[in-house]
Amino acid sequence: MNHTAEIISVGTELLLGNIANTDARDISTMLSELGINVYFHTVVGDNPERLKSAVAVARTRADIIITTGGLGPTYDDLTKETLAEAFGKKLVFDEAEARDIEEYFRTRLHSHAMTDNNYRQAMLPEGCVPFHNECGTAPGCAFEAEGVHVLMLPGPPSECIPMFRRCAMPYLRRLSELEIHSHNIYIFGLGESYVEDKLRPLMLRLKNPTLAPYALEGSVRLRVTAQAPTREEAEELMAPVIEEVRGTIGDYIYGIDTGSLEMTVSNLLRDRRLTIAAAESCTGGLFSKRITDIAGASEVFKGGAVTYATESKADILGVDRDTLQSLGPVSQEVAAQMARGARRVFHADLGVGITGIAGPGTDESGLPAGTVFIALASEEGTTVRSLHLGAQRDRVRIVAANHAFDMARRYLTGLPIE
Amino acid sequence: MNHTAEIISVGTELLLGNIANTDARDISTMLSELGINVYFHTVVGDNPERLKSAVAVARTRADIIITTGGLGPTYDDLTKETLAEAFGKKLVFDEAEARDIEEYFRTRLHSHAMTDNNYRQAMLPEGCVPFHNECGTAPGCAFEAEGVHVLMLPGPPSECIPMFRRCAMPYLRRLSELEIHSHNIYIFGLGESYVEDKLRPLMLRLKNPTLAPYALEGSVRLRVTAQAPTREEAEELMAPVIEEVRGTIGDYIYGIDTGSLEMTVSNLLRDRRLTIAAAESCTGGLFSKRITDIAGASEVFKGGAVTYATESKADILGVDRDTLQSLGPVSQEVAAQMARGARRVFHADLGVGITGIAGPGTDESGLPAGTVFIALASEEGTTVRSLHLGAQRDRVRIVAANHAFDMARRYLTGLPIE
Repeated sequence: MNHTAEIISVGTELLLGNIANTDARDISTMLSELGINVYFHTVVGDNPERLKSAVAVARTRADIIITTGGLGPTYDDLTKETLAEAFGKKLVFDEAEARDIEEYFRTRLHSHAMTDNNYRQAMLPEGCVPFHNECGTAPGCAFEAEGVHVLMLPGPPSECIPMFRRCAMPYLRRLSELEIHSHNIYIFGLGESYVEDKLRPLMLRLKNPTLAPYALEGSVRLRVTAQAPTREEAEELMAPVIEEVRGTIGDYIYGIDTGSLEMTVSNLLRDRRLTIAAAESCTGGLFSKRITDIAGASEVFKGGAVTYATESKADILGVDRDTLQSLGPVSQEVAAQMARGARRVFHADLGVGITGIAGPGTDESGLPAGTVFIALASEEGTTVRSLHLGAQRDRVRIVAANHAFDMARRYLTGLPIE
Repeated sequence: MNHTAEIISVGTELLLGNIANTDARDISTMLSELGINVYFHTVVGDNPERLKSAVAVARTRADIIITTGGLGPTYDDLTKETLAEAFGKKLVFDEAEARDIEEYFRTRLHSHAMTDNNYRQAMLPEGCVPFHNECGTAPGCAFEAEGVHVLMLPGPPSECIPMFRRCAMPYLRRLSELEIHSHNIYIFGLGESYVEDKLRPLMLRLKNPTLAPYALEGSVRLRVTAQAPTREEAEELMAPVIEEVRGTIGDYIYGIDTGSLEMTVSNLLRDRRLTIAAAESCTGGLFSKRITDIAGASEVFKGGAVTYATESKADILGVDRDTLQSLGPVSQEVAAQMARGARRVFHADLGVGITGIAGPGTDESGLPAGTVFIALASEEGTTVRSLHLGAQRDRVRIVAANHAFDMARRYLTGLPIE
């Protein structure tokens, strides 16, 4: 049987336009992986009457209702009360969840006092499956009543999405006969339309698995999705497609199911017992920040210098003062010296140097915003990429860091770097 | 008369989770400025039957229906047809819009050939106000029928939002008598429930303006919203409430309408013509990355050292090797020496030092994950905060960087720092 879900997002902040509904986007992606149809999203404010009416509409057109938001400790958080009433359920005090909330307060929020409102968060619909919140105090839950599965999750994306993945996915997977499995193929260095052009014959030919491209910030994701009774059978369907994509796209593929260039580079460094260090100017620490997002980064990352002021490029990294004077801090040669400096002062096997103009304006050099030079230094020498990335500051910084990771990846896998 | 709008966003890509509904967010912000209530957002796929049912629901609860999406040239773009039919309007060929589309093709899309489908985009409901599209081919429009104002806009944000601002805002402004204005008060160092407890009497007393708290990552936002015939009158209503909140919350408020600690610190440094530098370990460059997110950061930020490896704390920042040995790299004293080192090597007025264990695991020290020491060094001396932030790596890093910015803010405004 094919299930249909509706996502009801509760929160006046969504209706005021304070935030975009990324929960609905991310949950929809995961529902689509499960083969569950989504025909409507509804957003409603922190208002029990209007939430009730949204639920009344949703239950006429979906057999799975997923709410996000309104589980917080404050008086306007009324999702549980409203949904429980709509489906004739009482709220009962869940002793175990109350202990978990206490524990969260003790261990995570040392400075905050727990209030009666927080205990109210431990009230859950009778007979529900509680969804434990590892990233906050509000538990979620699921129950079945009157032919509808109701799942409630907290609103903050940092709580909602991990809980959906950990608790709601297994709950929903059991409702379905065919399993849906997928792999993501990540590509850097080719545009989405180019990738789509190259793969169109394959995409049109395929029925199961399917193949779909998505543009990410500066890279492309190809998703292969198969439906089958078991994971093994799904994998058998997907394997030849992944091979065919590899044949067409080649070494622009930087990862399968490894969604970040930094993770790819981190894994390669660890396997080869090598280390890296960074010298950053226009990216302002983004390269270092991204590689240290990964737990255990200290095995592969020695450190970084954010040499934003020109003199610090000389002071800390030993970039030649005459070069800084004659060629300017945004130049191929300075990038190369920064990379070698990072490698030397941090005693790392690889050094990255990034210098450029993040924008939106230019600087005293008069070079256009988005001019970036990226160097990779190793014991074999130094390679520099020259880039023109446009004038959008955030994008320039992200894409520049992506290129630095891509150069490291190519070096570490023996591919041409430039 | 108070108007109520509902936004219906049409697009299967929204239901598949390919993109977030930023159109609804941005339109809601503008509607709130106009004093138009928004009680629901609905998202529906490219399916005329389901769109029809969404319109049938919306017209029972809103007197303004705003659609986004489904105005493109392809066969599944059926918003105009569906809405026109729902409100008993014929579509008629709009000669002027057809000429505009031809013009757009000639001047902007040199490489694309115009097809019959593009002429179909010039079919508009009889008697409507056309909304000219300056950023694409699909015109939007507005009409009034059966007591409802229907506005249709294209889906791509780069077309939708400029058209809303240029065409829909003036159309809607004429319908409304009251304007809505708001201010955001940002708080660091107190939890959401604590803030709400403190402000509950005020929140319950208020009708216009209203006051509502929202939890952010490691900080809290309070939104004050007033309805009045003019901006001036709204400001007059809000001013005493903001004063009362200031009286209650005091110097935990770090900004009004300035939503980030780094922006607050950046502005304070610029006003005082001072500079800052950072030495980071567990935050891995996040402090530097955040302050350089802001265009023009080079005026106030000299640079940062991400001294992830222990020896680099000594090599680059001059942290005492004996101290590193005896107290370990995660210690109050090392944080203080890092802050002083950053100040010295980058020739900055203020130095920040952050050392800790981001988690999720511990390190050789055996200290619990989330143990973080943050130091601020100035010409007057060095202050250190000791924190225990739990074991969630991302949160530890974000909150640790927040504390560093908060210490700088407090120093720069003459408040106690610890």
